[in-house]
Amino acid sequence: LDDEAIAAARALQARLTKPPGSLGALEMLAVRMAGLAGACPPPIPQPAALAIFAGDHGVHAQGVTPWPQEVTAQMVANFLAGGAVVNAFARQCGASVTVVDVGVKATLDPADGLELRKVRPGTRDLSAGPAMTREEALQAIEVGIDIAQQLVDGGAKVLLTGDMGIANTTPSAALIAAFTHADPASVTGLGTGIDSETHARKVAVVTSAVVALHAEDPVDILAAVGGLEHAALVGYILRAAALRVPVIIDGVIAASAALAAAALAPASTSAMIAGHRSAEPGAGVALGYLELEPLVDLGLRLGEGTGAVLALPIVASAVRVLHEVATFDSAGVAHK
Amino acid sequence: LDDEAIAAARALQARLTKPPGSLGALEMLAVRMAGLAGACPPPIPQPAALAIFAGDHGVHAQGVTPWPQEVTAQMVANFLAGGAVVNAFARQCGASVTVVDVGVKATLDPADGLELRKVRPGTRDLSAGPAMTREEALQAIEVGIDIAQQLVDGGAKVLLTGDMGIANTTPSAALIAAFTHADPASVTGLGTGIDSETHARKVAVVTSAVVALHAEDPVDILAAVGGLEHAALVGYILRAAALRVPVIIDGVIAASAALAAAALAPASTSAMIAGHRSAEPGAGVALGYLELEPLVDLGLRLGEGTGAVLALPIVASAVRVLHEVATFDSAGVAHK
Repeated sequence: LDDEAIAAARALQARLTKPPGSLGALEMLAVRMAGLAGACPPPIPQPAALAIFAGDHGVHAQGVTPWPQEVTAQMVANFLAGGAVVNAFARQCGASVTVVDVGVKATLDPADGLELRKVRPGTRDLSAGPAMTREEALQAIEVGIDIAQQLVDGGAKVLLTGDMGIANTTPSAALIAAFTHADPASVTGLGTGIDSETHARKVAVVTSAVVALHAEDPVDILAAVGGLEHAALVGYILRAAALRVPVIIDGVIAASAALAAAALAPASTSAMIAGHRSAEPGAGVALGYLELEPLVDLGLRLGEGTGAVLALPIVASAVRVLHEVATFDSAGVAHK
Repeated sequence: LDDEAIAAARALQARLTKPPGSLGALEMLAVRMAGLAGACPPPIPQPAALAIFAGDHGVHAQGVTPWPQEVTAQMVANFLAGGAVVNAFARQCGASVTVVDVGVKATLDPADGLELRKVRPGTRDLSAGPAMTREEALQAIEVGIDIAQQLVDGGAKVLLTGDMGIANTTPSAALIAAFTHADPASVTGLGTGIDSETHARKVAVVTSAVVALHAEDPVDILAAVGGLEHAALVGYILRAAALRVPVIIDGVIAASAALAAAALAPASTSAMIAGHRSAEPGAGVALGYLELEPLVDLGLRLGEGTGAVLALPIVASAVRVLHEVATFDSAGVAHK
């Protein structure tokens, strides 16, 4: 973060026609965006680009979710047709949607808005061994880096994280337990809404995976218990941070990837904005560990990037204040 | 609320391509909007119109705020020039802004976007007697009714509440204490940010006003301890509800007016959406009493309508889901 831009943004906030501090969390957010951009005011975060990284999971075989694995590919088709919730949200606030096949089990046909970047058709079962090789994890990270670069080259001033992958709250919980050392049971939630028997199975899978984990290198942890979309998100977040472009973190999948990104490059948290607090317990633990306060807290647990998109107008509003609001002097408003 | 439309919206939510309940509070909000409109899907809340009701307060003489009273008129000029925070927020989400002089002390010149509907140049000092006569309160209510009707006639599908009035958190606290029977001290906050001496004075003023209050009729309570902008907001909210148009409640001023509206017409709460939880303690008490859960909770305490505007894209997103999201059948997505 650029100290000069931060000081300039703080000083500007104090001169704007509003009581000091009256915008609450939005004031600090705008100041932080100035520090990230190294400019006051920082760019208004528009256009906005959402990338939905899709992948399948070998751990699906352990019965951690009632949803069939085919739903991953079917939802990719739904995203491309514009029929998912995240598409409706993205239309509302004018964000573009790019779907990235980084590891869907099915072979997908080329389509507009779809990036075919499959590293492998789904991960291996993380309960039986590493989900990916280190090489595969690195390749998936590269995909995320490429996509972030491509979207920023295309003009995006803010990146949003999205994900799709049936069973992907299981690797997310394992990553969160591994990186924060939280009790696996406390970070393993109900995902799409599972019964208590399935939840017990999921907790057992996550717990054994974390117990069996002896890796310390963040990439090795990601390879052992993560997913291809998680690894891609790590690269996406890291590239956004390197480009000093803010990245809005969605829910538990993105938050678990953000932990890996922060472990690889602690300064990358400066670029992260927590879009919302997912109903998944692991999301709150991850955001707390990253010291990120979510902007929206409405009990969403859908993923896809919905919570990130919902937060976008709030982020844009916070930054817009530094561009457009008159000062006490310029508006001829008396100061107290 | 229309039971048939509610049932239709619930049934539709269950068929859409998302796990049941995964949109958290947004699902119930969309269902409620269907019930309000008597149609499923209910109209997408666009275009959106914000009315900022401005008034001055005789109680300013009691030293309840360090801001000079002239700031009310100066901020009206700032709104009309587009330089206030609420203007920046409104541009972000495409809401129109109408400023209504319902009781500014200064005489304002006609201007585009300004409705000259002054009932009187500021209220009387509520600590020395009723702030308004019953007639004046009713006239201000009529102004709010007219403005709501005018905006809906102009095409608005959702109304947002805004306010401006130096010292207006004092009558707001008195109204909240009067309508909820909460301890006056517990609902009297720091407003724009006052020191502890000023706060003690403000608590004393609110407490004596509430103790001296023997009215039971909501209009008489409003006249005794309210403000002209509060009364106008009551009419605005009631007309929105009567027209079955949702009305997004901003902060503590609007929430205190919403209590009076609910006292006059309990069914009007069906049209109310709590935009955000203001940092003012009285706002939370009022929303709790009205059983409204706020959509945004970011520590704002600016007023003007900022918290309502910030919530607008969330409301629109929630409703859009019922219009645009594919069903499991139509998208060919397998159900669990």
